[in-house]
Amino acid sequence: MQFMLNIDLTLPSNFTKEDAAELRARENAHALALMERKILLGIWRVVGRTSNFSLWEASTLEQLHATLSDLPMFPFMKIQVTPLIEHPVAAAFAQREDREHT
Amino acid sequence: MQFMLNIDLTLPSNFTKEDAAELRARENAHALALMERKILLGIWRVVGRTSNFSLWEASTLEQLHATLSDLPMFPFMKIQVTPLIEHPVAAAFAQREDREHT
Amino acid sequence: MQFMLNIDLTLPSNFTKEDAAELRARENAHALALMERKILLGIWRVVGRTSNFSLWEASTLEQLHATLSDLPMFPFMKIQVTPLIEHPVAAAFAQREDREHT
Amino acid sequence: MQFMLNIDLTLPSNFTKEDAAELRARENAHALALMERKILLGIWRVVGRTSNFSLWEASTLEQLHATLSDLPMFPFMKIQVTPLIEHPVAAAFAQREDREHT
Amino acid sequence: MQFMLNIDLTLPSNFTKEDAAELRARENAHALALMERKILLGIWRVVGRTSNFSLWEASTLEQLHATLSDLPMFPFMKIQVTPLIEHPVAAAFAQREDREHT
Amino acid sequence: MQFMLNIDLTLPSNFTKEDAAELRARENAHALALMERKILLGIWRVVGRTSNFSLWEASTLEQLHATLSDLPMFPFMKIQVTPLIEHPVAAAFAQREDREHT
Amino acid sequence: MQFMLNIDLTLPSNFTKEDAAELRARENAHALALMERKILLGIWRVVGRTSNFSLWEASTLEQLHATLSDLPMFPFMKIQVTPLIEHPVAAAFAQREDREHT
Amino acid sequence: MQFMLNIDLTLPSNFTKEDAAELRARENAHALALMERKILLGIWRVVGRTSNFSLWEASTLEQLHATLSDLPMFPFMKIQVTPLIEHPVAAAFAQREDREHT
Amino acid sequence: MQFMLNIDLTLPSNFTKEDAAELRARENAHALALMERKILLGIWRVVGRTSNFSLWEASTLEQLHATLSDLPMFPFMKIQVTPLIEHPVAAAFAQREDREHT
Amino acid sequence: MQFMLNIDLTLPSNFTKEDAAELRARENAHALALMERKILLGIWRVVGRTSNFSLWEASTLEQLHATLSDLPMFPFMKIQVTPLIEHPVAAAFAQREDREHT
Repeated sequence: MQFMLNIDLTLPSNFTKEDAAELRARENAHALALMERKILLGIWRVVGRTSNFSLWEASTLEQLHATLSDLPMFPFMKIQVTPLIEHPVAAAFAQREDREHT
Repeated sequence: MQFMLNIDLTLPSNFTKEDAAELRARENAHALALMERKILLGIWRVVGRTSNFSLWEASTLEQLHATLSDLPMFPFMKIQVTPLIEHPVAAAFAQREDREHT
Repeated sequence: MQFMLNIDLTLPSNFTKEDAAELRARENAHALALMERKILLGIWRVVGRTSNFSLWEASTLEQLHATLSDLPMFPFMKIQVTPLIEHPVAAAFAQREDREHT
Repeated sequence: MQFMLNIDLTLPSNFTKEDAAELRARENAHALALMERKILLGIWRVVGRTSNFSLWEASTLEQLHATLSDLPMFPFMKIQVTPLIEHPVAAAFAQREDREHT
Repeated sequence: MQFMLNIDLTLPSNFTKEDAAELRARENAHALALMERKILLGIWRVVGRTSNFSLWEASTLEQLHATLSDLPMFPFMKIQVTPLIEHPVAAAFAQREDREHT
Repeated sequence: MQFMLNIDLTLPSNFTKEDAAELRARENAHALALMERKILLGIWRVVGRTSNFSLWEASTLEQLHATLSDLPMFPFMKIQVTPLIEHPVAAAFAQREDREHT
Repeated sequence: MQFMLNIDLTLPSNFTKEDAAELRARENAHALALMERKILLGIWRVVGRTSNFSLWEASTLEQLHATLSDLPMFPFMKIQVTPLIEHPVAAAFAQREDREHT
Repeated sequence: MQFMLNIDLTLPSNFTKEDAAELRARENAHALALMERKILLGIWRVVGRTSNFSLWEASTLEQLHATLSDLPMFPFMKIQVTPLIEHPVAAAFAQREDREHT
Repeated sequence: MQFMLNIDLTLPSNFTKEDAAELRARENAHALALMERKILLGIWRVVGRTSNFSLWEASTLEQLHATLSDLPMFPFMKIQVTPLIEHPVAAAFAQREDREHT
Repeated sequence: MQFMLNIDLTLPSNFTKEDAAELRARENAHALALMERKILLGIWRVVGRTSNFSLWEASTLEQLHATLSDLPMFPFMKIQVTPLIEHPVAAAFAQREDREHT
């Protein structure tokens, strides 16, 4: 089950550069672990903004919510969650790829 | 160079089911060819809406625009283009993947 | 897996009263069958508008999308899908209910 | 008389984790009591946001307002109230259920 | 139980002046009857727009919805319903009025 | 000359409960006096929000503005002013009432 | 009593150039007469849009509404009405002007 | 060259009444001088809001921007600038006025 | 005097491809002539949309409006006009360029 | 590859005039260097607002993002990035210019 997220980040104005850097380091380490576990499938930074798109895999909505709530930067995120299904074009492409590699 | 697109589709109200089916078939064949050429990197349908997210590769903005303008359904699309860069987490993940597979 | 939907309905202006009544009859019969199959868990009409809130159960996003696409009035609906998880208060209440009825 | 509410919560930025936890505990105990009294009929948390949907029963608007104003987190809530009536599909379903269980 | 409504009216562009005048006459006669029955408590036209504010009394939400759906112009109305309770100032004023007239 | 106002109130976050209660008491006393002078014709609280609708009489716009500026809570109000005229239905109703009481 | 209006004009798409020209001629003649009667105090066209700002004098809201409803283009106008009072700077300026010309 | 401005004012919450009064006095004196120099052609206060409409004359955009930036309250203003041209009705009226006074 | 414009184009749905092509040819020839006369200083197409940004020079607002109104596609354009002044960085750059080329 | 940016600037309210002046000086020096390197192709200040339009050249999206992130005022900017392609009119004009200067 996949979800597209658009996350806007706003750190509190009283954060020092060190606070921000430390939090960002924890966030990135955390996210990297999620990529390795195939929970976070892709993440792309939006040019010129502290915003990103990300593609998530979750077997339940509870799991998705728990994963997001555990993100170190969660309290500073505004998250837009869009539930996705496979597009027929992506399905046809996957099928063709499969055939070619067998 | 990658771009996230959010496309909303509104077919004209005077389209018959056959018009719509024929156009959709052409659109999907066209999009499949773009996936095979690694121009359309991913496409996901939004649940409950005639809308999708898609990830595109283009070496120039001219190429991206030409590709979009050539889509059979282009005249009926409202397209939101977001330029992307690699997210540090995705970069770290790619690097780790590379190391592991060498 | 549950979802709250807010659906706004706009029938085409060239629909006769008979077209509308016939479509509405089919839509309601269809929705009733979904309630019996525990797919549509609840539906509430918004006062003063052709709009409703509805609560849906689906084991996959594909199933949810297929169910919505099959609705007779789907082409005339603007659907807002919100993925839900159990609220801790509802969980505590369910637990207490269980205890009392055992 | 039923109402759908969509509540967004924003705790003041100067709240400590303890403040928040204590308030949340009071809010949840309060809401649980309302569920037991059949005033709060259902509550669902929105995935990825500090927001929820909830379904309320009230015999008067005064009662609804008093109930909401008494919520411990009321000062930090942005509440959207939508008055509801029974949807014909839900009515037909309830009738059928009744018949079957007699 | 009282509700403030803000209604915007948009007649179809293919209506003749006669269609519009005939419909408006029926709407006004209908509304006048509702005023006499103390269901429509007040109605005010917005300067420079085909829009109005109106104050309604209803003992149930079902009654309010049925009343609105029966309005001859209902299909052409965009209605915003706001549930109201007595304001403490209005309550104090009513009390004082009562005292003075006894 | 009548005006419908929709007022949203946001007290500063550094207000104590006592500050708020004291200000509210002054505001309500002030508003009550305006009702007695037939300047404030009606006021209704919006369910679930610190917002109200109110109907005002003023013989000039200067008088309306002066009245609003003098409200103890004015600095914390966001006010939407809508100029009104008599609706033909209300006019017809008033006429009929007059006839009946003569 | 003065009001600032912002009017956006959208003529129906089935209007011929002749229809539009004829209507515009009537509208302008009508508006000119209103200027001569000191009802329309000023009117300014917005650059690049079929929109204008205009300043109106009316002794009652009824008169303002009647004047607007009588405009030949009224059915095609979207009107934003803002009630105005004299600004203290304008008042001071008027006073000084008076003194100088006596 | 004329411009319609809509200015919303928001003074910082830590301003004392004295700060505000002193700034307002300076702003008004400044604006009065601009009226005398025929740069500020008109200014109207919006009823019930700390907002105004104003009409400005400037021979260049640089002059307009410099004038606005010099306003004592400029840092607290949100300004909407609309470039204007003479409306044909105003032109016809001016011409007629001229004829009559010669 | 310079202005940034953002123009969105929506051709009527009953336009044939030939109508559109013919109009576009006339629009482009017209715009090219404006570039040669240094009135249209730059024009950029927005990727994925029938929208563009353009930079205009005009000695008066009347001239700008007349130029825009004369565009063959004007009736189908939604135009956002932003008045501009020289940015100090551009001024410093121009000065430096001048020095270097003397 | 070109991009149109619309940047709104909001300095923190606790900045002194000196802080702001110093930051602005650094920003402008930085931007001037980008103009000399043909990365910032143009920049225009919006009249009456702390906002500007700017035209950027970048050979990659990474380069554009890095350039923006390095701006001294970046943390206080809200940036809207619009990817651009050459407009056919600009292309025709460039061609004609070339021909004439050869």
